[in-house]
Amino acid sequence: MCAVFGVWNHEEAARITYLGLYAMQHRGQESSGIVSLSEGRHFHHKGLGLVADIFKEEQLKALPGKAAVGHNRYSTTGQNLLANAQPLTAEMMSGSLALAHNGNLVNERSLKVELQKQGAIFHGTTDTEVLLHLLSRTPSQDLMQALQQTLPKLQGAFSFVLLAHDRLVAVRDPLGFRPLILGRKKNAEGSWAYVVASETCALDLIEAEVVREIAPGEIFCVDQSGEQSLTFKTISSDSTSTSEAKPKLARCIFEHVYFSRPDSIIFNKSVYESRKNFGRWLAKETAVDADLVIPVPDSGVPAAIGYSQQSGLPFEFGIIRNHYVGRTFIQPQQSIRSFGVKIKLNPQVAVLKGKRVVVVDDSLVRGTTSQKIIGLIRQAGAKEVHMRIASPPTTGPCFYGVDTPQKNLLIASHSSVQEISKFIGADSLGYLSMQGLTEAIDSSSGYCAACFDGKYPTPLS
Amino acid sequence: MCAVFGVWNHEEAARITYLGLYAMQHRGQESSGIVSLSEGRHFHHKGLGLVADIFKEEQLKALPGKAAVGHNRYSTTGQNLLANAQPLTAEMMSGSLALAHNGNLVNERSLKVELQKQGAIFHGTTDTEVLLHLLSRTPSQDLMQALQQTLPKLQGAFSFVLLAHDRLVAVRDPLGFRPLILGRKKNAEGSWAYVVASETCALDLIEAEVVREIAPGEIFCVDQSGEQSLTFKTISSDSTSTSEAKPKLARCIFEHVYFSRPDSIIFNKSVYESRKNFGRWLAKETAVDADLVIPVPDSGVPAAIGYSQQSGLPFEFGIIRNHYVGRTFIQPQQSIRSFGVKIKLNPQVAVLKGKRVVVVDDSLVRGTTSQKIIGLIRQAGAKEVHMRIASPPTTGPCFYGVDTPQKNLLIASHSSVQEISKFIGADSLGYLSMQGLTEAIDSSSGYCAACFDGKYPTPLS
Amino acid sequence: MCAVFGVWNHEEAARITYLGLYAMQHRGQESSGIVSLSEGRHFHHKGLGLVADIFKEEQLKALPGKAAVGHNRYSTTGQNLLANAQPLTAEMMSGSLALAHNGNLVNERSLKVELQKQGAIFHGTTDTEVLLHLLSRTPSQDLMQALQQTLPKLQGAFSFVLLAHDRLVAVRDPLGFRPLILGRKKNAEGSWAYVVASETCALDLIEAEVVREIAPGEIFCVDQSGEQSLTFKTISSDSTSTSEAKPKLARCIFEHVYFSRPDSIIFNKSVYESRKNFGRWLAKETAVDADLVIPVPDSGVPAAIGYSQQSGLPFEFGIIRNHYVGRTFIQPQQSIRSFGVKIKLNPQVAVLKGKRVVVVDDSLVRGTTSQKIIGLIRQAGAKEVHMRIASPPTTGPCFYGVDTPQKNLLIASHSSVQEISKFIGADSLGYLSMQGLTEAIDSSSGYCAACFDGKYPTPLS
Amino acid sequence: MCAVFGVWNHEEAARITYLGLYAMQHRGQESSGIVSLSEGRHFHHKGLGLVADIFKEEQLKALPGKAAVGHNRYSTTGQNLLANAQPLTAEMMSGSLALAHNGNLVNERSLKVELQKQGAIFHGTTDTEVLLHLLSRTPSQDLMQALQQTLPKLQGAFSFVLLAHDRLVAVRDPLGFRPLILGRKKNAEGSWAYVVASETCALDLIEAEVVREIAPGEIFCVDQSGEQSLTFKTISSDSTSTSEAKPKLARCIFEHVYFSRPDSIIFNKSVYESRKNFGRWLAKETAVDADLVIPVPDSGVPAAIGYSQQSGLPFEFGIIRNHYVGRTFIQPQQSIRSFGVKIKLNPQVAVLKGKRVVVVDDSLVRGTTSQKIIGLIRQAGAKEVHMRIASPPTTGPCFYGVDTPQKNLLIASHSSVQEISKFIGADSLGYLSMQGLTEAIDSSSGYCAACFDGKYPTPLS
Repeated sequence: MCAVFGVWNHEEAARITYLGLYAMQHRGQESSGIVSLSEGRHFHHKGLGLVADIFKEEQLKALPGKAAVGHNRYSTTGQNLLANAQPLTAEMMSGSLALAHNGNLVNERSLKVELQKQGAIFHGTTDTEVLLHLLSRTPSQDLMQALQQTLPKLQGAFSFVLLAHDRLVAVRDPLGFRPLILGRKKNAEGSWAYVVASETCALDLIEAEVVREIAPGEIFCVDQSGEQSLTFKTISSDSTSTSEAKPKLARCIFEHVYFSRPDSIIFNKSVYESRKNFGRWLAKETAVDADLVIPVPDSGVPAAIGYSQQSGLPFEFGIIRNHYVGRTFIQPQQSIRSFGVKIKLNPQVAVLKGKRVVVVDDSLVRGTTSQKIIGLIRQAGAKEVHMRIASPPTTGPCFYGVDTPQKNLLIASHSSVQEISKFIGADSLGYLSMQGLTEAIDSSSGYCAACFDGKYPTPLS
Repeated sequence: MCAVFGVWNHEEAARITYLGLYAMQHRGQESSGIVSLSEGRHFHHKGLGLVADIFKEEQLKALPGKAAVGHNRYSTTGQNLLANAQPLTAEMMSGSLALAHNGNLVNERSLKVELQKQGAIFHGTTDTEVLLHLLSRTPSQDLMQALQQTLPKLQGAFSFVLLAHDRLVAVRDPLGFRPLILGRKKNAEGSWAYVVASETCALDLIEAEVVREIAPGEIFCVDQSGEQSLTFKTISSDSTSTSEAKPKLARCIFEHVYFSRPDSIIFNKSVYESRKNFGRWLAKETAVDADLVIPVPDSGVPAAIGYSQQSGLPFEFGIIRNHYVGRTFIQPQQSIRSFGVKIKLNPQVAVLKGKRVVVVDDSLVRGTTSQKIIGLIRQAGAKEVHMRIASPPTTGPCFYGVDTPQKNLLIASHSSVQEISKFIGADSLGYLSMQGLTEAIDSSSGYCAACFDGKYPTPLS
Repeated sequence: MCAVFGVWNHEEAARITYLGLYAMQHRGQESSGIVSLSEGRHFHHKGLGLVADIFKEEQLKALPGKAAVGHNRYSTTGQNLLANAQPLTAEMMSGSLALAHNGNLVNERSLKVELQKQGAIFHGTTDTEVLLHLLSRTPSQDLMQALQQTLPKLQGAFSFVLLAHDRLVAVRDPLGFRPLILGRKKNAEGSWAYVVASETCALDLIEAEVVREIAPGEIFCVDQSGEQSLTFKTISSDSTSTSEAKPKLARCIFEHVYFSRPDSIIFNKSVYESRKNFGRWLAKETAVDADLVIPVPDSGVPAAIGYSQQSGLPFEFGIIRNHYVGRTFIQPQQSIRSFGVKIKLNPQVAVLKGKRVVVVDDSLVRGTTSQKIIGLIRQAGAKEVHMRIASPPTTGPCFYGVDTPQKNLLIASHSSVQEISKFIGADSLGYLSMQGLTEAIDSSSGYCAACFDGKYPTPLS
Repeated sequence: MCAVFGVWNHEEAARITYLGLYAMQHRGQESSGIVSLSEGRHFHHKGLGLVADIFKEEQLKALPGKAAVGHNRYSTTGQNLLANAQPLTAEMMSGSLALAHNGNLVNERSLKVELQKQGAIFHGTTDTEVLLHLLSRTPSQDLMQALQQTLPKLQGAFSFVLLAHDRLVAVRDPLGFRPLILGRKKNAEGSWAYVVASETCALDLIEAEVVREIAPGEIFCVDQSGEQSLTFKTISSDSTSTSEAKPKLARCIFEHVYFSRPDSIIFNKSVYESRKNFGRWLAKETAVDADLVIPVPDSGVPAAIGYSQQSGLPFEFGIIRNHYVGRTFIQPQQSIRSFGVKIKLNPQVAVLKGKRVVVVDDSLVRGTTSQKIIGLIRQAGAKEVHMRIASPPTTGPCFYGVDTPQKNLLIASHSSVQEISKFIGADSLGYLSMQGLTEAIDSSSGYCAACFDGKYPTPLS
């Protein structure tokens, strides 16, 4: 879970990138970076934290040029955080190259071992570094050819934006796991600047118009002479995924369930409308006699609105979210119950007291947060608490870039709905069915829902 | 507009204060400070910015003791910001004194001139300093007596929390402009810790229970020997306000309209419910044929829900708010239209296109922000935009601590509703009436609504 | 021990002050501040640490105007460091006033109690605040008259620089404890800018020429209409100090012994030459058979040169000082012997091995540092170590602004020279005699040497 | 010009390294870094600036383990400073490797091109990265063998310290350009910890004893099983340097002239004594009738003492150096003459006025600084100024790690001594002769003095 952004032919490339990254801050808060291109030379700045803290006037001024690539990184564990910050940069035979990656390669380890055997040196722990080494070892001096030869070796999810010394390139894996949008915006001279971004909300802020999605399996390139589009093929180590002439798509359903901003159009669908539909279907499938519907803010809001509209139960903000949230909070030693949840969420007695409450959340992963939230709702005086999850039980980890925990930490992988309901302290618990999910998003195929149904669309190592 | 907080007899006084201030961050983001008391000595730390950035483990460790007072300051213009940060501290004959103030004194200037004539030295530009000087010049060595003698000289709005070397004192002006809540919480030894705070949401986070409001005109004190409550009288320079035996209350209606957190109970009423009621009354008074109701997030949300429930029009989040908002954003020189609004708010085409939209906001001050928001909503394809304001036209500035601009900048002070509607580009504009406001909050008296009706409850200098 | 600086009528007043403070950084490293004056209004910035860290382009740009006053503060113990940073500022009846002080008032406590009885509020723990309150309570609206009436109430050491809304004032106490130099420098328009500074080295850096010392008991003022000089009288609470028509001077001998920079001219004498003379006299009085003379760098260097020239023993840098010294160093837990000394000073085997060494230092206070240095010199292989101190035994604390410890921590207050020699591990120890000190500086009277001879020139409270 | 440091088998490895780097701060102030080793895993922290600012308790605590390697980097121009900070780290087939380098490779460019042709990716602009790639491409999995095979490909100056997952390795180039010292220190368990450092002054501070120099052409390794020493041979691309069985040494004379700390023993000689000898020979060769000898502090001090002792002229500190020097100083726009020099150095009128002065400096590169210093000395009233340089004319740039400017900026490369004397404004100018230099350091061979005599000991590309 990360954000990528690129811009070509705009006189304020770094500032445009900065705003694009800011609009996609929700996709990664660990670190951000921008590499700009001026007169064939790269300039870069990276930092830990939020975009608006990392980049100030001084930093943006030091990123000249008319093209840039940027990246937000999602928080992970482990040290060396800045070393993993992207865009990665490399000095190769063919010149400087900067690379931003959203997704996850499933065959990273075997590629890495092979490259190390050949003498490659790795500097961080990110899988993205692998592509740089593969490109660097490709005989072709032409970046497009090199990509065509190299990309088929990668398995997994990848939306790449590359900035070379002379062009901007956007790549999306053949299954289209992660979104990648192409947009355009008039520059000061009145000609078109090209923009690529993980989400359309980034285009909205910078007043760029959406052109189209980068297609699965496409290598899109723009340079001084114009744009160019190529495709590449995957060499699969598994027969199933190549038996068909045209690969089935595996667009990540979780982008619609939770990850993208509600105001983005992802895979040509409004995320907000998808979530409302999940809520509507959820209401159909898990109706309950109650007084009101409340969301777990902010991620449960659209589904709760859908649930309310379908069920006719009034929608209320029974839990208020404090948005002044920093990185860490200092807790008294004489511990406050459910501190981690309470620092963000405050259930209201005035709304909840004596009421039968339907609580809608987007998904349920470990169950511990739901347990705390339900505890707080009961403390606020709710008579009944009915938990409703606007997606199916999460039973499997994601290997394509969503930061779900390992399988045994997913409560639905080993507990029944009734057991989970008891664990979280709900009067009842209802999930959206797989069929409901599928119908709600109006697509019987073309999505990866492996976290819900265990059908992983690539071989796993 | 500020937040005050105090705690007495809790072994983690500074941490409790830190959390209380964090919960009330919305009342002031310019600066924060905490003064703690240990063995008769004061320790303090103040800083510019947000509570979670100013106070880290190191700073909290340097604030020992079982009592503390804290303050969040609202952003104002001018230099010397840190010099104005509260709590103010003073070394007097009677010992150290720390003071936090929410409100505004209307006779500050005349008091200041008189004090300077007597040789008083001022260090900042805040009106709060006046009280310290008045107390210091009072013959009585007893703080309670000194307050009883001094407070009647003050005119205007004041909720004070004072920390002396031996006690915590909470004071509220006789008209009760600003809220001030008394709470309690068990400490580690099982005895009661006392807490005072501007809003109940601060008590919620620290798991304190609400005891009661500090009464208008009350001096509440707690020390080693227990609690004590006194009242004080105002010497008015104007006959109108003292002609009655019991002063009419002038509780700030704007706390319910906009300023307090929706999950707080202010003046014994739920803010969320008040806002929903404003929305309901607004729907009754300004009904319009439309497809959906959307709030200007976050402040317009409860009123929009009320409007939706009353009108039967569906409630939707047509505008998505980005909450990763820093202090400043760097804008491209090739300016983005309505940048200041767009950096926070993004209207959704998927929700708004081709629709007749009712937009609900809490209040309308200058009109410029509404103008920009309506422009963005139209760009997103709305067919009609009906602006609805969940309070009456703002026609007068506030002299009691709300940061409204001067009269000529208040668009409703010189323009008719129709003119404003045209200025902001709405298809129609509707305000809540004064009567609607009054009935919605179910109190024909006891509130100051001077910003709407011009009836200022104190003489003005 | 602090530095004061002021400038009037120079278009780059804040930058000039910044450089003056930088040149006098040795007089105080705890905090620094500058207040500038532009169009009758004060602008200020203060910070903890070193001048070059506190003031950057941004801070200096925010200090406009053609006049400024600055201060470096010496490190002291206790909290609230920034609150004590100078220049102090006050808003009074007569306008804004900024005040910088070098010295120490011996009757601060009684003045403070009296002022507090009258209702004065103190904000820090510095004695300097007293003058602001006294001035503010003086009936006269004219600053010069107010100073003439107020200054006689102060006892002790004070070199003040004041910046009012319309003038710069420099004041020196009647006994002239601390230095204060008047200089001038051509401004961009070709007219004279006035400069006052604690030491001449500040004038050297900014290319100002020395005019004269501010005289003991003088109030020097410069404003738009030109310069003016007044004197004031002390009302003594002790008959001894006023029995004479003209007060004896009490210029601090320690400025020459240790405190001032060697390249300054203090009390009309070169500090470097004074120290060399102390070394020469020391050599005459404490001759010993040895191979070489080494200083404890940097403060012992001039005296060691003088000792070498007088004795004929070769001068060598037997101890090398590391000048990259930060505020704190992290020591291994498995402690390094004499870490605090070793982090700064490294004795050289190549110079010291097998040699009989005379080690010259400026003064000996507690004896602990000398003990460590001698230990390190012996480790480096010196055959004999003869400690020579270029001042008499320090037997009394200073009440006039030098940060000597209390009497019982002064080793010479309770130990004989022989005992001290044994304690520090020297083969011999020799001090400069009081007579030697007096003759070396060529002045039988006019100096305060109370730290050596116990003759305090003012009554002590 | 950099500092390297390594430690093995000490329980406070990171703290020891921190102190070692602090002691060698003079060798590089741009950036510092430490990599520690704990349970086969590397931990690192790097930063821009001074050691004592980069490493605080928090950073050192995050560097666990009993082995560490550290580096100080000299300031260079260009961006991406942190990317060039050392130690460099790499993940290879054989595990993690950290590398610190003092010196400069003269065949870096050709090696880099060849490596890039083979697909190697470079991340920074430092030549040091080349060794990592060469090692990574060496078939042998054994680090010692890999080094033996790889090091002969490098030409130029290199003192390396490497930390692998299981050992510490120290390497010195066959000509021994840069120093590298082996020391040892008892650890808490009473066994020996090994230490390697660029200079002995680092061993002094941490109380380690000197064992010996790492020999030119030696690979020294220490791991759990003990120490090991190998040699390696150079494959020269030039017949001259391998025609002899044993390569002539090319120890850098400039370490003694200027670069090392005076209290270090470099190439088995005291730097302080070398400089004094340079001064003595200089006095013999360039005697002049004068009143006193002064150094340009600090680098000219030992030579000036030597000059004084040889000539009999008295040694004085005619110029006082201010050691509170930050990174940058803000200069008034109305410029101060010779600001850059004056901010550090202040000539004393009291010492210089009317005197004939011999000024001793270690070397003269561009001539511009000497010009300014002489100007200031004349302003201070000196009657005659005789410049004496304790090394020969600098006529050639260094390609082995000393940051001398390009040839045409070296004044002695195109101007006669008389012309230089005129340019700098001296009454006379005298350099130490090459013969004097050679005799003073008592070694007719074994040194590289190419910056003085143009005899570069390696082929240059």
